Amino acid sequence: MHQTFDAALGINLLHANQAGADHNREHFDEWGITCLNIMSSPGAGKTVLLERTLAALSDALKIAVIEGDMTTELDAERLRCYGVPVIAINTGRSCHLDSKMVAGGIHQLAQDYNPSEFDLVLVENVGNLVCPAEFEVGEHIKVALLSVTEGEDKPLKYPVMFREADCLLITKIDLAPYLDIEVSRIAANARQINPDVNIIAISAKTGEGLAIWLDWVRGQVANLTRSPASVSLAKLG
Amino acid sequence: MHQTFDAALGINLLHANQAGADHNREHFDEWGITCLNIMSSPGAGKTVLLERTLAALSDALKIAVIEGDMTTELDAERLRCYGVPVIAINTGRSCHLDSKMVAGGIHQLAQDYNPSEFDLVLVENVGNLVCPAEFEVGEHIKVALLSVTEGEDKPLKYPVMFREADCLLITKIDLAPYLDIEVSRIAANARQINPDVNIIAISAKTGEGLAIWLDWVRGQVANLTRSPASVSLAKLG
Repeated sequence: MHQTFDAALGINLLHANQAGADHNREHFDEWGITCLNIMSSPGAGKTVLLERTLAALSDALKIAVIEGDMTTELDAERLRCYGVPVIAINTGRSCHLDSKMVAGGIHQLAQDYNPSEFDLVLVENVGNLVCPAEFEVGEHIKVALLSVTEGEDKPLKYPVMFREADCLLITKIDLAPYLDIEVSRIAANARQINPDVNIIAISAKTGEGLAIWLDWVRGQVANLTRSPASVSLAKLG
Repeated sequence: MHQTFDAALGINLLHANQAGADHNREHFDEWGITCLNIMSSPGAGKTVLLERTLAALSDALKIAVIEGDMTTELDAERLRCYGVPVIAINTGRSCHLDSKMVAGGIHQLAQDYNPSEFDLVLVENVGNLVCPAEFEVGEHIKVALLSVTEGEDKPLKYPVMFREADCLLITKIDLAPYLDIEVSRIAANARQINPDVNIIAISAKTGEGLAIWLDWVRGQVANLTRSPASVSLAKLG
């Protein structure tokens, strides 16, 4: 669960969270890291997406994962098999990651490694289609996943997540033939909420769409990664 | 999103919510109504479960639905086809129903109908596997749904919901053959968190398990429904 106001400190936690997120993003920019915040309901396929992404990209790109779960390190253990740093954050009763939790992960990364060597940090948020959309963690890009099994109407019923997302992955499309679901109707409902969202339909099982996703990730890293010098120039400009 | 502390009022919202839930439950007890709070991730099948339940039981039992959604009346409209009162509550940015919202629904029911004529109120919560478990609304029984498509590990990763649930419905079991999922492993993980939880595996598509669910609901109504007289006796006792 999450609070929006801390009575003892007398501060609006959403504002404090945003300041922390901006600070995290300054670190990422300074180190030339692109950060993706990956969000969805439980079981929409975030962890398997990360597995496929690490398998395909970790030779060409230096990647770290910040793995948020209420409890357990089950997902973190799955991802450590891919030979990249995986920093596990247990949120306890909190239904989302916040910028302070992710700051802890960033500091651990900077302590154990040279952060300037990294190209990409993938943050896997707690499985929740509502709350994570409201708490930035310092990401450059928000990625939402929606499984075809969740139903066509979900972008309309949970608009905050779909309005915030830069990229929507419609997942488990291999299951669509067994459901009364049209991927195109999910996409149309998402565009009704967010006309500019980039939509990619994928199946981690068959591999369909994964090449498009991987190209899109490579493009985001190429677009956003800046050397410390160019960051300084941007700040001067 | 939800708050746990209201700075203007200086009150702990969880405590205030609990007091409101107890008050709602007193109303239900007074009227001889059994109330079920139905919770799950988005798209686990809450609304279709209610459709099947209303189709099967609304002749024998007098049922009303309190339908929580962040936005839209899509689900409420689906359920109104079954000829029962459906009170729609839009929670806006809130990621769960709370007892105050449900109190509004109860008062509307009492205004439009004779509430003592009702046997069963089904509350469909906002789709979220985390937050609704922490906010009672006045229910007698908590029902959690988990779709087989969400994965076997979810009871371990989202323990609050599974610890609170009186009954767990494992849904969409018709899809299990297309997934690397064993229903028995989901059940074992749930029992690890909550050894006493009643578990029913169902498919709204094939009808498997629905008779067991319907019998269980009938049993809950028979167990819990009290006449105003017996409530008074209980209070005197």
